[in-house]
Amino acid sequence: MNITLKPIGFVHTDCPREQIPRHWSVSEVEGRLEIEKKYEPGLQDIQAGQQLMVIFYFDRSPQFTPELLTQTPPHRTSAKGVFSICSPVRPNPIGLSVVEVLEVNHNVIWVKGLDMLDGTPILDLKPYVKRSEE
Amino acid sequence: MNITLKPIGFVHTDCPREQIPRHWSVSEVEGRLEIEKKYEPGLQDIQAGQQLMVIFYFDRSPQFTPELLTQTPPHRTSAKGVFSICSPVRPNPIGLSVVEVLEVNHNVIWVKGLDMLDGTPILDLKPYVKRSEE
Repeated sequence: MNITLKPIGFVHTDCPREQIPRHWSVSEVEGRLEIEKKYEPGLQDIQAGQQLMVIFYFDRSPQFTPELLTQTPPHRTSAKGVFSICSPVRPNPIGLSVVEVLEVNHNVIWVKGLDMLDGTPILDLKPYVKRSEE
Repeated sequence: MNITLKPIGFVHTDCPREQIPRHWSVSEVEGRLEIEKKYEPGLQDIQAGQQLMVIFYFDRSPQFTPELLTQTPPHRTSAKGVFSICSPVRPNPIGLSVVEVLEVNHNVIWVKGLDMLDGTPILDLKPYVKRSEE
């Protein structure tokens, strides 16, 4: 079973690649989500100040191989299972970040908290929902 | 640009389709994530009691068309932009749920909080990370 997706847009940031934080939860990097014009009506309820989940494609990750099922993240000393870490090298190279919306201008969303590289393809945007018991 | 993914496993639940809640945040439905045997080493750090993000493919969603860029969710009275709701009918039919892990047995993860139908293809599993300011 093959699943074929197309980007709905791309991440753009002026932040140099080597200064992009390893994770959105520690990022203050600003940039913009440029969504394809044809999807603009779908952005109508996204507002400044809200948090937004961005699902994206790790387009520059190397091919996944079985020895990468466990990996030692940069900030750790022991290997962990790939499904317990946020490594960009995973069986399906899908990433998820939660960013803060700064401004929405037509089909462009300005955000803070990026951990994606400039040019990263965006697959989906979703509202950030917390578990009800929290 | 086409992005091609393959399921890493499938959701299984005995809960009848018509009783699956509309969203994981209100679900107590139990079931299992059957991950392909070859990925088992990647599951080693997933533990009972933790919350797990499941990224999956809405394999039974109808084709997305432009008039679906705004939709009225079942529990609302006005239309919202598709990127502000959790509708299964979206430009890329990707879903995201946060479930509670009940037990891990080799390549099978028993979970609670399902809002996916039996047989749903799983694309990725990730740890559930909250924003640092929370």
